[in-house]
Amino acid sequence: MIVYKSADWWEAFRHLRQSPIIQKLLQRVMLLGLYSSAVAVIGYPLSHLKVTIDPQYFSLLGILLSLLLAFRTNSAYDRFWEGRRVWGQLTNNCRNLAVLLHARLPAADQSHRYHLAKLLSNFPIALEGHLREGVRFEQLEDLPGNLMDKLRQSGHVPSLLAALLQEFYELLLREELILPTHLITIQRHHEALLDVCGACERIQRTPIPFSYSYFIKGFISVFLLVMPWVLITTYGFFMIPITMFGAYALLGVEMIGDEIEDPFGRDSNDLPLAQMAHRMRVNIHEILGVELHEAKKALADAPYSVVQ
Amino acid sequence: MIVYKSADWWEAFRHLRQSPIIQKLLQRVMLLGLYSSAVAVIGYPLSHLKVTIDPQYFSLLGILLSLLLAFRTNSAYDRFWEGRRVWGQLTNNCRNLAVLLHARLPAADQSHRYHLAKLLSNFPIALEGHLREGVRFEQLEDLPGNLMDKLRQSGHVPSLLAALLQEFYELLLREELILPTHLITIQRHHEALLDVCGACERIQRTPIPFSYSYFIKGFISVFLLVMPWVLITTYGFFMIPITMFGAYALLGVEMIGDEIEDPFGRDSNDLPLAQMAHRMRVNIHEILGVELHEAKKALADAPYSVVQ
Amino acid sequence: MIVYKSADWWEAFRHLRQSPIIQKLLQRVMLLGLYSSAVAVIGYPLSHLKVTIDPQYFSLLGILLSLLLAFRTNSAYDRFWEGRRVWGQLTNNCRNLAVLLHARLPAADQSHRYHLAKLLSNFPIALEGHLREGVRFEQLEDLPGNLMDKLRQSGHVPSLLAALLQEFYELLLREELILPTHLITIQRHHEALLDVCGACERIQRTPIPFSYSYFIKGFISVFLLVMPWVLITTYGFFMIPITMFGAYALLGVEMIGDEIEDPFGRDSNDLPLAQMAHRMRVNIHEILGVELHEAKKALADAPYSVVQ
Amino acid sequence: MIVYKSADWWEAFRHLRQSPIIQKLLQRVMLLGLYSSAVAVIGYPLSHLKVTIDPQYFSLLGILLSLLLAFRTNSAYDRFWEGRRVWGQLTNNCRNLAVLLHARLPAADQSHRYHLAKLLSNFPIALEGHLREGVRFEQLEDLPGNLMDKLRQSGHVPSLLAALLQEFYELLLREELILPTHLITIQRHHEALLDVCGACERIQRTPIPFSYSYFIKGFISVFLLVMPWVLITTYGFFMIPITMFGAYALLGVEMIGDEIEDPFGRDSNDLPLAQMAHRMRVNIHEILGVELHEAKKALADAPYSVVQ
Amino acid sequence: MIVYKSADWWEAFRHLRQSPIIQKLLQRVMLLGLYSSAVAVIGYPLSHLKVTIDPQYFSLLGILLSLLLAFRTNSAYDRFWEGRRVWGQLTNNCRNLAVLLHARLPAADQSHRYHLAKLLSNFPIALEGHLREGVRFEQLEDLPGNLMDKLRQSGHVPSLLAALLQEFYELLLREELILPTHLITIQRHHEALLDVCGACERIQRTPIPFSYSYFIKGFISVFLLVMPWVLITTYGFFMIPITMFGAYALLGVEMIGDEIEDPFGRDSNDLPLAQMAHRMRVNIHEILGVELHEAKKALADAPYSVVQ
Repeated sequence: MIVYKSADWWEAFRHLRQSPIIQKLLQRVMLLGLYSSAVAVIGYPLSHLKVTIDPQYFSLLGILLSLLLAFRTNSAYDRFWEGRRVWGQLTNNCRNLAVLLHARLPAADQSHRYHLAKLLSNFPIALEGHLREGVRFEQLEDLPGNLMDKLRQSGHVPSLLAALLQEFYELLLREELILPTHLITIQRHHEALLDVCGACERIQRTPIPFSYSYFIKGFISVFLLVMPWVLITTYGFFMIPITMFGAYALLGVEMIGDEIEDPFGRDSNDLPLAQMAHRMRVNIHEILGVELHEAKKALADAPYSVVQ
Repeated sequence: MIVYKSADWWEAFRHLRQSPIIQKLLQRVMLLGLYSSAVAVIGYPLSHLKVTIDPQYFSLLGILLSLLLAFRTNSAYDRFWEGRRVWGQLTNNCRNLAVLLHARLPAADQSHRYHLAKLLSNFPIALEGHLREGVRFEQLEDLPGNLMDKLRQSGHVPSLLAALLQEFYELLLREELILPTHLITIQRHHEALLDVCGACERIQRTPIPFSYSYFIKGFISVFLLVMPWVLITTYGFFMIPITMFGAYALLGVEMIGDEIEDPFGRDSNDLPLAQMAHRMRVNIHEILGVELHEAKKALADAPYSVVQ
Repeated sequence: MIVYKSADWWEAFRHLRQSPIIQKLLQRVMLLGLYSSAVAVIGYPLSHLKVTIDPQYFSLLGILLSLLLAFRTNSAYDRFWEGRRVWGQLTNNCRNLAVLLHARLPAADQSHRYHLAKLLSNFPIALEGHLREGVRFEQLEDLPGNLMDKLRQSGHVPSLLAALLQEFYELLLREELILPTHLITIQRHHEALLDVCGACERIQRTPIPFSYSYFIKGFISVFLLVMPWVLITTYGFFMIPITMFGAYALLGVEMIGDEIEDPFGRDSNDLPLAQMAHRMRVNIHEILGVELHEAKKALADAPYSVVQ
Repeated sequence: MIVYKSADWWEAFRHLRQSPIIQKLLQRVMLLGLYSSAVAVIGYPLSHLKVTIDPQYFSLLGILLSLLLAFRTNSAYDRFWEGRRVWGQLTNNCRNLAVLLHARLPAADQSHRYHLAKLLSNFPIALEGHLREGVRFEQLEDLPGNLMDKLRQSGHVPSLLAALLQEFYELLLREELILPTHLITIQRHHEALLDVCGACERIQRTPIPFSYSYFIKGFISVFLLVMPWVLITTYGFFMIPITMFGAYALLGVEMIGDEIEDPFGRDSNDLPLAQMAHRMRVNIHEILGVELHEAKKALADAPYSVVQ
Repeated sequence: MIVYKSADWWEAFRHLRQSPIIQKLLQRVMLLGLYSSAVAVIGYPLSHLKVTIDPQYFSLLGILLSLLLAFRTNSAYDRFWEGRRVWGQLTNNCRNLAVLLHARLPAADQSHRYHLAKLLSNFPIALEGHLREGVRFEQLEDLPGNLMDKLRQSGHVPSLLAALLQEFYELLLREELILPTHLITIQRHHEALLDVCGACERIQRTPIPFSYSYFIKGFISVFLLVMPWVLITTYGFFMIPITMFGAYALLGVEMIGDEIEDPFGRDSNDLPLAQMAHRMRVNIHEILGVELHEAKKALADAPYSVVQ
């Protein structure tokens, strides 16, 4: 995610080169420029034919296309924002679990505190890996050996971590460190972990329905391929930059929608999952009063003009 | 559901042939092409009459129609996405139930674990059948004989499965394997099963109100039937492809809305319910530490370029 | 509610006659046709005056009107869909209550089961009456005599039924058939009954604000009354069908919005409340293992091309 | 709130005079009519200058303004509807509290029943005053003297009523009239009282952001002041009614938005808070089996063509 | 936040000077005016070239841009409103916690009441600082010395305050001043504190995705820079005010969106967090019956035409 000062208007142009999606967009606009130039060379001699276009008919199609692109934009942004919201819920629930068990565990009970801090911190880190290239086990907080082995063999690491946490609560209950009443609240926070995991999987695995996506792409393609032939009668060679600006607008909205739709990747618009997971780890350790290595703390404060 | 790489623009055209809804759309566009051709043959001699169309009036109707189609698209997509969300909740609640009872049941208690894994796995599989052609009982995990018979006679299989699970929790409570406190959390996850079932039935049985649906269809029909007569005065025979492109756009949005609206069918845009149910079965068995046949595991990982 | 196969395009026209809202719409379109004809007779001699209309100004008003109609459509559909959703929640909560108490009550305890099945089944049936012409007490399941009398004298039947159910839970608690823990879950399902009742009353009693409704009606009226005078200069007598098509579109969207807004009536777009209530009764009886008369079962499966 | 039959189209015009917001709107339209007349007198001699307006540029601004007005309308209606929804929740929670405690309190225990009925009924009545001109203590149900004095001195009456109710639950708990388990459900209903109060305060105290509101007002003002100068070249004196119709449309949408935004006032579109509070009082008393004076009952059934 | 009477139309213009965002907007409009003047001087001699613009093509782009600006406006307002809603939830939960513990703590127990009132009041005050320039510890209610020191060293003050409150509940539980049952309700209110904190951090740290923001800025920039060259052929020097009005509209919508998007700053549209926190402090102290210094009470009632 590129962090930017949203009110700074003039900086906009400088960043155009950095965003991969906008680079790709510019490439395609260039391609369309080449196509337009070819049309211009071929079509210019014919431009005296004055093919007029019925304005209302094409205006209608243009409005329909614009509304479809607005729908695309809204639904893509909703997914992006839902992705951010569920990671925010993950933060809230980790903090609340830590606050509750901190107040309940004896202040001197470092062993339980360490175990909880590690298990809980590992959940977001594992989830980040699960949603990207796979869990990198060397990034997790160290757990007793056999647990680490079980994690490595698991088909769904977040589920297993949730199960380990659940076993830990049962242990606390048996040792009478928490009352049954506490369990009711703990369960509510705990279940949110797997709910967040499920919501992320849903957003990632179910893009906008196939038909809509391709229907819009087809619509834009026809529109842009026909346009130079129409505009040449009015503008002559001046049609080339005009077509390219139109392509910038139409392709741009579509392509940003495609990118935003899955906010868990590593594009410049995607969410900084890794940093958020590291920040949760710092929070959890601080609330529980458990030491954390400075190097790990630093990961949460990475100067994030571009963060992952 | 056809799974596709959403940012890959040029692949769009290749898939046009695969989607049944787009095939049907192309058929109708062809029909309209025939109609336009007939109009062209009949109407061309009259085209010197120069019937001009008042632009603002028709622009208004076009905008109104576009907004209605945007409404159609939004409401259809909302249903699709709600369908996906409730199946995601089903996944979350199955996992959370399995995690909770795994931590509570003695590790060696294979018999209760098997029974739970089977009952719980059967719910999504039965729901998939319930929403499609009816439950296929041979797909369910095997239950003790008399239970299987009761299921076969039931008028509403998911309700009966929920009742069997509820009886199982009461059994655990009587055997003091769970505390009353646990029941509060279990009930919250458990009730989500029937809530999901009810939400799916609601989406499936209540399409967009009759009047809207037919009003839009009527509007589009009149629009498309009148159009060739209007366009012929401006474009002559060139009007035929132009009309067809307009038909592609208007009919396309409407037809995709009709298809997306019920996401539980077997169209290429519909949700891969069967595969999701199989994946839940794998998850539940793994969390509870219960063996599952490799052939059944494989069903969850079907290479899904087209999945059900 | 008319149940229809949403993808069947050509059947649209056949149903136009059946929907009362569309009949009323056609009447008004006819009226406007008469008005247009009068305008045509009076105005035709004046049509050489060539009153031109400033396109941008009227285009703006047209767009504003279209957006208002889109707002109308969205808010009306939201109410329709919320009405459906809360009746779906009613179904879910009735099933969940039945499942929970079925598992808890001794299998042989037919008397409690019968009482619960009757009370619970009566709630949706009474709610349907409450939202329509008043509760028809002969449709309710028979309750012990004094209860039936109390119901008949009640000012708000659903509240009293909820109170009777609550008394029944307290009875079960006193007889130790349920634990206090069960009550927590039961209460959550139980309170949903009155929440659904309140939501339905809200939708029914609070239409879209007066000012919006009449503002839109006034806007459309002026628009349609002015239109023939404007169009006659361009089209002559051909203006009559064109005006009527415009009236069909504008009036249609408005009138359907008026109808959909309150989904609890008996129009062809309204929800099949009676059938839904009967289906809940069948579900509840089946889950609790209590006999239900075949004639009552049949009501839930009425072949619903038109259902109430 | 003016209650109206939404499908009755022709009655629309008769009500125009009753709504204060529409009266104010008509005033402003008249003012603009005067302004236009002045422009007509001054500008007519210049109208041969034929200042043409670039259509696309102004069309764009018109669409942008229409979309901003649509945004205004949607956000104002959302507030109106949220206000209605939270008052509906208040109704539901009052009924549910009454149902729960009715079933739990001994039938003969009139003193507790009276106290509860009075406290609970006073909450919506006090909230109505709190949101309008201040609580009118003579309207509240009579409480023991010192409580009434405390209410009169309170800085936030609904909070104090909630605290008195909470003390009442604790009393019931100490007298073992309710179990701790009941308290969990009671608390959930009880907290909704202050949640509703907070939501109403939020809607009332936070209008749409200052910048949007004034930006839109400025946009419309410029638009309407410029319009007569533009239209005069096309229409001459006929421009006056046309401008006034445009003013009716643009000002109307804006002003209705301003009014609907805070639904707790006494405008004709505002919610009938007083009547809703009286109806809750009747419901609560009936459920708890406590007498209520006929005159108070009558307030709930006021023939509400205009209600407060 | 500037508090205004939303229906007072004519006051709009007077406030234009006060709002910093509108001042900045006017600056930019002036800049564009200068640019237009330069274009006018250079371009006027060329204006006889009559470059006509294809209306439909630019109309399409204008509609697309308008829809993107509508999307921008909606998403910015949603964030603003969510920010307000979560602060409203904070108010509700603080009041509910105070009401519950007031009823439970012995009336004479001033020491626990004071401690709770201080801890609870500090949460919103600390959150306000946390979201703005950092917590100002001198503004917090005084806590016993070592707690204040811990707060000063904390990396995340709201989390630590939540932990201190949680320890306080555990203390009450150990001293048997509350039952385990009460804890369930208290926890639900308590967890809302950190949920609100997390939601505010989410809104503040995650602006609308980079690509959308810059895409829209780029679109508007090109549009406004090209416009004078186009309009000069139609209007001559009259184009300058017209361009400036267009710039006012397009830039205005974009800039207000940028400002509203983060509602926790100190702009004139931002939420009055400080005053809301002070008002919560007054509420909490009044409910718990604990004295608060008059000077602190006064902060909650600041005459807020401009409040922070």
